[in-house]
Amino acid sequence: MCPNSNDTPAQLLREDHKGVAWLTLNRPKARNSLSSELIELLQTELNQIAETPSIRVVVISANGPAFCAGHDLKEVTCSDQAFHEVLFARCSELMLSIRRMPQPVIASVQSLATAAGCQLVATCDLAVAARSARFATPGVHIGLFCSTPMVALTRNVSPKQAMQLLLTGDPIDAQTALAYGLVSQVVDDEKLQEETLTLALKIASKSGQTLRIGKEAFYQQLHLSEADAYRYASDVMVKNLQIVDAKEGIAAFVEKRHPVWEQDKE
Amino acid sequence: MCPNSNDTPAQLLREDHKGVAWLTLNRPKARNSLSSELIELLQTELNQIAETPSIRVVVISANGPAFCAGHDLKEVTCSDQAFHEVLFARCSELMLSIRRMPQPVIASVQSLATAAGCQLVATCDLAVAARSARFATPGVHIGLFCSTPMVALTRNVSPKQAMQLLLTGDPIDAQTALAYGLVSQVVDDEKLQEETLTLALKIASKSGQTLRIGKEAFYQQLHLSEADAYRYASDVMVKNLQIVDAKEGIAAFVEKRHPVWEQDKE
Amino acid sequence: MCPNSNDTPAQLLREDHKGVAWLTLNRPKARNSLSSELIELLQTELNQIAETPSIRVVVISANGPAFCAGHDLKEVTCSDQAFHEVLFARCSELMLSIRRMPQPVIASVQSLATAAGCQLVATCDLAVAARSARFATPGVHIGLFCSTPMVALTRNVSPKQAMQLLLTGDPIDAQTALAYGLVSQVVDDEKLQEETLTLALKIASKSGQTLRIGKEAFYQQLHLSEADAYRYASDVMVKNLQIVDAKEGIAAFVEKRHPVWEQDKE
Repeated sequence: MCPNSNDTPAQLLREDHKGVAWLTLNRPKARNSLSSELIELLQTELNQIAETPSIRVVVISANGPAFCAGHDLKEVTCSDQAFHEVLFARCSELMLSIRRMPQPVIASVQSLATAAGCQLVATCDLAVAARSARFATPGVHIGLFCSTPMVALTRNVSPKQAMQLLLTGDPIDAQTALAYGLVSQVVDDEKLQEETLTLALKIASKSGQTLRIGKEAFYQQLHLSEADAYRYASDVMVKNLQIVDAKEGIAAFVEKRHPVWEQDKE
Repeated sequence: MCPNSNDTPAQLLREDHKGVAWLTLNRPKARNSLSSELIELLQTELNQIAETPSIRVVVISANGPAFCAGHDLKEVTCSDQAFHEVLFARCSELMLSIRRMPQPVIASVQSLATAAGCQLVATCDLAVAARSARFATPGVHIGLFCSTPMVALTRNVSPKQAMQLLLTGDPIDAQTALAYGLVSQVVDDEKLQEETLTLALKIASKSGQTLRIGKEAFYQQLHLSEADAYRYASDVMVKNLQIVDAKEGIAAFVEKRHPVWEQDKE
Repeated sequence: MCPNSNDTPAQLLREDHKGVAWLTLNRPKARNSLSSELIELLQTELNQIAETPSIRVVVISANGPAFCAGHDLKEVTCSDQAFHEVLFARCSELMLSIRRMPQPVIASVQSLATAAGCQLVATCDLAVAARSARFATPGVHIGLFCSTPMVALTRNVSPKQAMQLLLTGDPIDAQTALAYGLVSQVVDDEKLQEETLTLALKIASKSGQTLRIGKEAFYQQLHLSEADAYRYASDVMVKNLQIVDAKEGIAAFVEKRHPVWEQDKE
């Protein structure tokens, strides 16, 4: 499904298809750990996608026996504090970029997502998990509490559920992750790619303009007071009604036909 | 159960019974969509109820094949931006009024609650859903992201669950809505009215003074820091202990008898 | 399991075992209600534990037919408002101490946890519940809304779930409490002590330095904006990497051996 395009280094694959940019972490032997290099590759790719309106949905999947094992231990074991500072700053920036970019980002998780890998899943807007996938924040086992993964985790799951993961380091299965709200969908292992693509294409078939308005508004209003959030969101609705795709969408609904979005005319 | 009283226009029915004000959205042909008129009728009724201490619980139910289909598309399709601004401001004000009014408000949901209809369910303090009820924020289908419904939705369900609803527009069933925390109870379809009434009467049998204190405190403390919330709530407890109904309630408990609230003497 | 040590008053038992301080509420006839005296005993014990690095985990369990029935009604029924002010201030301080102390605190809940007893469960970092345990905030029955328990409750469970508990006063069972996120684990009744101990010893086998860093960071970052939380947590990670136990933990992982923490050398 995801052959390496000419411009993309082999550690990160990308294939675009009908408005979906499908990224694949491709360090299988390193359990797709987030080395500085892979973080930079992902950041560069996401920055480029953010500037590409024809892409309406992003998928982050992985090749190999693990979805993502977190940071690269070799990098973490070096004794250079300045390097660590840059590493965690860049990884945090990557996570924030996922939230800030205009396109929804879907994690497609097979096997194990641990530490910063679990953080990546928590950070994505949606996550489809294979039934056998597992999730853990095991830093506590090696004396390094998963403090940065915790930021994403506690913004997705309730405090005691997050504490259970963080204090024990024990993995949870996909069904538990679904109940916790850490993933949004669980599918049979052999259907992971197919179901993720179905979801991605469904969302990519919507108006890209509208998706951008919606995703931005989602995170903007999330931590406002309810009254401020309503003032903000009402303003968003009024502006959303002015865009061409909203006029077309409502007209199509009234006329009982499929809408033709701006993106479909390109 | 809910005949039209003389003073209430036919679009919104109200019947009062043992401290419960039972409101029924009654635009079945328009799928109970929240037209400007229905919003104003609801607002007027809720304002009046807020000033009526003998009402201790409010129910919002609906007649017809849908609980509430959101805004009136005819109003949304008009090209008058100033009208839209007023529409969303008034709808937001209605939602905030539900949170601010002293009485708990229970949604009683049959069939489909979509867009602002789903927002109405999310906004109520409690929601009883028929087993066949479904919930969706389908604005994305017509190019108009459900940004105002999102405000209420994200204050009830976890981020990925909200994103799933908002980005796909797909409905969830009642059992999923219960797991998400969007509704607080699921009952058999034929028992929706009976179970909602049982719940409403149970709450209405409590001290109205106490319910008012509690509901106000609930939303006041929700977004404070934990230390500030405790300072505030401790003060609420001390004042609550001074009211006649608390003295009576505690005395009745000690004497192993039913309390007689102030409202029971009227 | 928990014999009374010489220094501990009989209302509160303590036994230390392999880095776990196991506290037992021991007012069985008073259903372990949180009298001023028991609050003070707990506060004193937790303050002492907080200063004792060799303790890495705290358990709060209870003897008798109830886990904890909330405040002592005799104290609440007194007519001294100044006394009430002190009572709620001290109880709130106790709850905040549980969050602020460096060690994770696990509630081990048999039977019924009500009002401030339910608050105590909600406040602990983790909670193991016996399958037959039940949880309620029944203040509304006696005219005294559970406003202080609400602070802890709403920081653990979603709004409608909290409202259901607070407005009806009805108990929920352990499985529902697990789904709500009010407890983190449900076990068979006869295994409550064993399973709680297993969990406590598992966490106590981790680096105490690391647990302290993690727990403090958990609550510090919880209510920051995501960007601020990442800045804070990245700084925590960098500092965590400098501690001896992190160097040892990572080395042990690389060398495929068990780590020897600083605490193991004492």
